Amino acid sequence: VSGGGEEAFVAWLRKATGRKSLVGDDTATLPPPRRGHRYVVTVDQQIEGTHFLSGLDPETLGRRLLRVNLSDLAASGATPRYAFLVLGLPEDVDPKSIVKGVLRDAKRYGVILAGGDVAHTDDFSSSLSLIGEKRAADAPLTRDRARPGHAIWLGGTVGESALGCELLLRAAADALERDADPGDAEPERPAAPERAVPAAAGPARAARRAVMRNLLPTPQLELGRWLAGLGRSAGACIDLSDGLGKDLARVTTASGVGAEIDLRRVRRATAPGFERLAEALELDPIAVALAGGEDYVLLFTLPPGIAPPARFRARCIGTVTRDRALILLDRA
Amino acid sequence: VSGGGEEAFVAWLRKATGRKSLVGDDTATLPPPRRGHRYVVTVDQQIEGTHFLSGLDPETLGRRLLRVNLSDLAASGATPRYAFLVLGLPEDVDPKSIVKGVLRDAKRYGVILAGGDVAHTDDFSSSLSLIGEKRAADAPLTRDRARPGHAIWLGGTVGESALGCELLLRAAADALERDADPGDAEPERPAAPERAVPAAAGPARAARRAVMRNLLPTPQLELGRWLAGLGRSAGACIDLSDGLGKDLARVTTASGVGAEIDLRRVRRATAPGFERLAEALELDPIAVALAGGEDYVLLFTLPPGIAPPARFRARCIGTVTRDRALILLDRA
Repeated sequence: VSGGGEEAFVAWLRKATGRKSLVGDDTATLPPPRRGHRYVVTVDQQIEGTHFLSGLDPETLGRRLLRVNLSDLAASGATPRYAFLVLGLPEDVDPKSIVKGVLRDAKRYGVILAGGDVAHTDDFSSSLSLIGEKRAADAPLTRDRARPGHAIWLGGTVGESALGCELLLRAAADALERDADPGDAEPERPAAPERAVPAAAGPARAARRAVMRNLLPTPQLELGRWLAGLGRSAGACIDLSDGLGKDLARVTTASGVGAEIDLRRVRRATAPGFERLAEALELDPIAVALAGGEDYVLLFTLPPGIAPPARFRARCIGTVTRDRALILLDRA
Repeated sequence: VSGGGEEAFVAWLRKATGRKSLVGDDTATLPPPRRGHRYVVTVDQQIEGTHFLSGLDPETLGRRLLRVNLSDLAASGATPRYAFLVLGLPEDVDPKSIVKGVLRDAKRYGVILAGGDVAHTDDFSSSLSLIGEKRAADAPLTRDRARPGHAIWLGGTVGESALGCELLLRAAADALERDADPGDAEPERPAAPERAVPAAAGPARAARRAVMRNLLPTPQLELGRWLAGLGRSAGACIDLSDGLGKDLARVTTASGVGAEIDLRRVRRATAPGFERLAEALELDPIAVALAGGEDYVLLFTLPPGIAPPARFRARCIGTVTRDRALILLDRA
């Protein structure tokens, strides 16, 4: 429907994806879902400054956009199938690098980029629609399925992404300071994730990992599918975007329950070197673990007696309670 | 996946649409397509200043966003089913008025608003993903199906929307001029389409119609379905967003053909009072009819001997030629 920008972009996309039949003129036709399956849809947007830091290299941006959105499908237990990309870009930004990033990780996660739209805007904005597939018999994995007595599980470590974000912010502040030096050349934008890590960031390995974790989160698709496969036994599920505290509160509020969280267990559900890195940045490790966002691991509840297979390295951090309160236990 | 904005918005949406089961936490599950049908998907964005005039009232904006996107489905011959709305809004804009507009016309066109995302941005941006349904046996209605000898048809009148846009621009310029008067209060933004029409706009009725046509285009869904139902006999189809000249060139280029257009017939394919209104605005009627965009009528080709039923009021304006040129015939 839009102007020449979309046309050239779709023509390029058709070439880049090699999917003439699916990337249509203005619409894409989906094959029917597999027997006994349903399509599920999620849409999400990423806005510069709000959802990611300015100056992120376009390919990483594309990869991140896809991964964050895939995390929504992971939390619903669906298998990703098709993606549709909408970009609003300032004149000087080339959409192709972003699309290359999307295509790179689309291949990794088995997603077909099936269409899109691009237009020129003052500020950068992007949105992605994802269509996945799920068995009709699978559990819905909604937030309102936590029941008193359920165990509360984390699909991975928490707080690491927030430390990575903090490192990137400090690196950006340093660059701006250097730029204030008169006569200096314009500071190079961080071209690739690895280069964005400040050299003197304390435990260097943990710092690099934290930055990568923030830039390229890993959607827990396999874990989501395992949870959905539990059918009636499955509990609630959410992907951690806004931090353990906030996202747990979403689950307990939706389910009309409370939670008792063991802080020792939360401490154990952090990445190697997390505590030392937080302290090097003069941050309280447990506060970061509870409040830091964008880890994109699954938080889920399960009836007692059901535990995820060891390969998922999931960790139990507490119990769902009938009393509608969030209790943090800090036994020494 | 996003912050509290989305959550509150989805909660409100769930209430407004009454569709608890479909508007999920972060994903919506679609029922399987009807027997023998396929889902088709289209995504599109609308950006303030690029795709519509600043100051448009939010409800009209929502209605327009949906209608423009529905036109893409019309051109593919699909029946609309589900919509997903993504909004990027400045802090002072309430998403609910926009959604009310979307919901109002969603009801009219049988579309379910099944999910969405909202975030705060500096500039207004919006995108809509639409999922429609189409019989597997239906014609694809792509742009590359025009064949030499096909008749070229218009599903409605052309140029009227461009005149409406011109009227709105002049009304805005007048308002700004009045605003330059020192000590004056801020001019009221046009609150509803009707109020945006300048009183002294020559043939008043044609002017009102033109403005409404620009603000609220009518997607030709029924005509698209009829064309798709022709199966192997169907030709090419496109919805006119960028003007007859540009969009016809898209069809001929994609099909590797040319076209001979009869300008007398194009003149007849304009709205009542179109010529007088164009002249009152000191514009060349035929130039506006050929170059003016956003009419959102279907431009399609059909083999000789097949004509759309009279109820569609479609008009034949020329013939597809083997020679790859666009010839405009102006026989007196």
